[in-house]
Amino acid sequence: MFKILHTNGKARRGEFRTVHGVVQTPVFQNVGTLAAIKGAVSTNDLKEVGCQIELSNTYHLHLRPGDEIVHKMGGLHRFMNWDRPILTDSGGFQVFSLAGLRKITEEGVSFSSHIDGHRIFMGPEESMQIQSNLASTIAMAFDECVENPSPYEYVKNSAERTYRWLVRCKEEMTRLNKLDRTINKKQLLFGINQGGVFDDVRIDNMKKIAKLDLPGYAIGGLAVGETHEEMYHILDIVLPYAPEDRPRYLMGVGTPSNIIESVARGIDFFDCVMASRNARHGFIFTRNGTMNMMNQKYETDSLPIDPECGCPTCRSYSRAYIRHLFKAKEMLAMRLCVLHNLYFFNHLMEDIRAAIEEDRFERFRADNVIKLAKRI
Amino acid sequence: MFKILHTNGKARRGEFRTVHGVVQTPVFQNVGTLAAIKGAVSTNDLKEVGCQIELSNTYHLHLRPGDEIVHKMGGLHRFMNWDRPILTDSGGFQVFSLAGLRKITEEGVSFSSHIDGHRIFMGPEESMQIQSNLASTIAMAFDECVENPSPYEYVKNSAERTYRWLVRCKEEMTRLNKLDRTINKKQLLFGINQGGVFDDVRIDNMKKIAKLDLPGYAIGGLAVGETHEEMYHILDIVLPYAPEDRPRYLMGVGTPSNIIESVARGIDFFDCVMASRNARHGFIFTRNGTMNMMNQKYETDSLPIDPECGCPTCRSYSRAYIRHLFKAKEMLAMRLCVLHNLYFFNHLMEDIRAAIEEDRFERFRADNVIKLAKRI
Repeated sequence: MFKILHTNGKARRGEFRTVHGVVQTPVFQNVGTLAAIKGAVSTNDLKEVGCQIELSNTYHLHLRPGDEIVHKMGGLHRFMNWDRPILTDSGGFQVFSLAGLRKITEEGVSFSSHIDGHRIFMGPEESMQIQSNLASTIAMAFDECVENPSPYEYVKNSAERTYRWLVRCKEEMTRLNKLDRTINKKQLLFGINQGGVFDDVRIDNMKKIAKLDLPGYAIGGLAVGETHEEMYHILDIVLPYAPEDRPRYLMGVGTPSNIIESVARGIDFFDCVMASRNARHGFIFTRNGTMNMMNQKYETDSLPIDPECGCPTCRSYSRAYIRHLFKAKEMLAMRLCVLHNLYFFNHLMEDIRAAIEEDRFERFRADNVIKLAKRI
Repeated sequence: MFKILHTNGKARRGEFRTVHGVVQTPVFQNVGTLAAIKGAVSTNDLKEVGCQIELSNTYHLHLRPGDEIVHKMGGLHRFMNWDRPILTDSGGFQVFSLAGLRKITEEGVSFSSHIDGHRIFMGPEESMQIQSNLASTIAMAFDECVENPSPYEYVKNSAERTYRWLVRCKEEMTRLNKLDRTINKKQLLFGINQGGVFDDVRIDNMKKIAKLDLPGYAIGGLAVGETHEEMYHILDIVLPYAPEDRPRYLMGVGTPSNIIESVARGIDFFDCVMASRNARHGFIFTRNGTMNMMNQKYETDSLPIDPECGCPTCRSYSRAYIRHLFKAKEMLAMRLCVLHNLYFFNHLMEDIRAAIEEDRFERFRADNVIKLAKRI
């Protein structure tokens, strides 16, 4: 299913085969929380910006429109008109960051909807059932995402419970994939490594989940309060214990520089709302650094955002026009910037893949980590 | 410049040649107030939905980004990346409907910006200068748009002043089109007939403006409070005095039925924000009547909005998905519905043109006027 085509240092150039097509890795997943990319970007647009895999949120879709509705509509792919792979998260992250009045037990978590406050229970089985209804290509294990820093004992106990939940997720997914009503009977389950910023908890947890022989492994619980250095350190110490021949997904990360640094450590999958969220506020990523399209200096600037960019926005519209759209509160401003940023992230991954293939990834990293983070 | 290719009753099938290309009439102008179609629709999208001519608002663009900025950017066409015809209104309608603290004199109108309250003066010369900066294909005369009903004496005096303003508009446009700095030296000026719902004022005004030998004539001051019957009556009595060989533009109209009824009376140009504004609230036009996409009955409806529609939305997305997007407050909902409605209006005009060409317009009218207004 996952094939490593080439390595360059610890960086891996791979191919992940699914029932919904092949994903070239390292890959950036484009986030469409509610089965839609925010900023009025359609799935037709997504193809134009080079998106290989879309990510939707189980918690959000469970609330609206409801996973039973999506199941009735033939699953997420048909519902949102997207024929390439889709990954759904487990709902765990939102349960722990967005919902209210949480109560965690061995069984799972009960909490209040952030929309209307109604009580919901979600455990490993419920998360798998919802994701099976959504019929995504890849389902994520139900986990507790602990913010950093948290006390050692809490993190250790939580990681152990998350492991026990993962065992239940795997069993439930195996059961669901055999049911007649199941839309995607080849739905894949990725496990999630937890353990906060504690080396021994992380390593112990990774060793245990690796034995479950899952089609992919994520590193969760990072980019939630710790420094970039702590994050890279965790990758350095934990990835040696992740199965070599399975894709590794760093959840919720990150900036272009974070991505390059993490590829250098052996990560294959990424996702982050930053690309589209920043775009909606006029913050733009380019190969030469970041720009703020609200800046007065673009008022009569007839250049595209990035004259060398091939995205639909840069092929057609000027900085002055985009600035005007933001100032005039026209929705088109957001859409044009989201298109640009997603194109940028998807093509950054293309550049990363080429650099690995051509054994020049270290040079690529040295040339870009600082430059891409610069404000211009 | 304007050529009538065929008539069927009073309905006219024409062709209007401009420096920015040929417009097939009857035509519906797609409204992009601030040099952008609301609902995150780009000019690339506009071509996909069959838009022949875009309409932008002088008052709004004078305030944001400022017509001097647009001039510096090479005019509206380059600024918004649209190479087909653009019509700009005169600013008059917004001055009288949106701005505050108006004071009308023979010279023009002083008023307060609806954004920051700063005082602005606009008369015929200022309106022409702004529209010359915008470099639209067609500029509209600066007029007073009087709401209906208004007292006879007021309407009569206002129409006479609007006529005197039109004479000044024509002189100023002639002067501006000769200046070196002018971007579109072939900018066209359309006159506007006013006179409220008073036959004699309307006719007298039309006779006078017809003598000015302008490239086009609009009927203004309708769809501002009077009934549809009063509106059609005014068209019936005033159009016989409009020059046969010039296009006639009914400003701000209207529903599909209004358009068909007005074509039947000899109107060639239309514009209305309803197509896009209604779409943003989930109100949809189809060949079988109107729909409200928020309706519960679409919750699991896998059909497109209109199974026979060829628009980008109907080719790709279901009613259930669009309803979900509205409920989830995803911007994409608005965009998909605006694309559909604009496609519908542009293709309604195509159907109207075909019906005229094929001498079956009366049949088309009888078949559609009631049906298109029906709620389904």
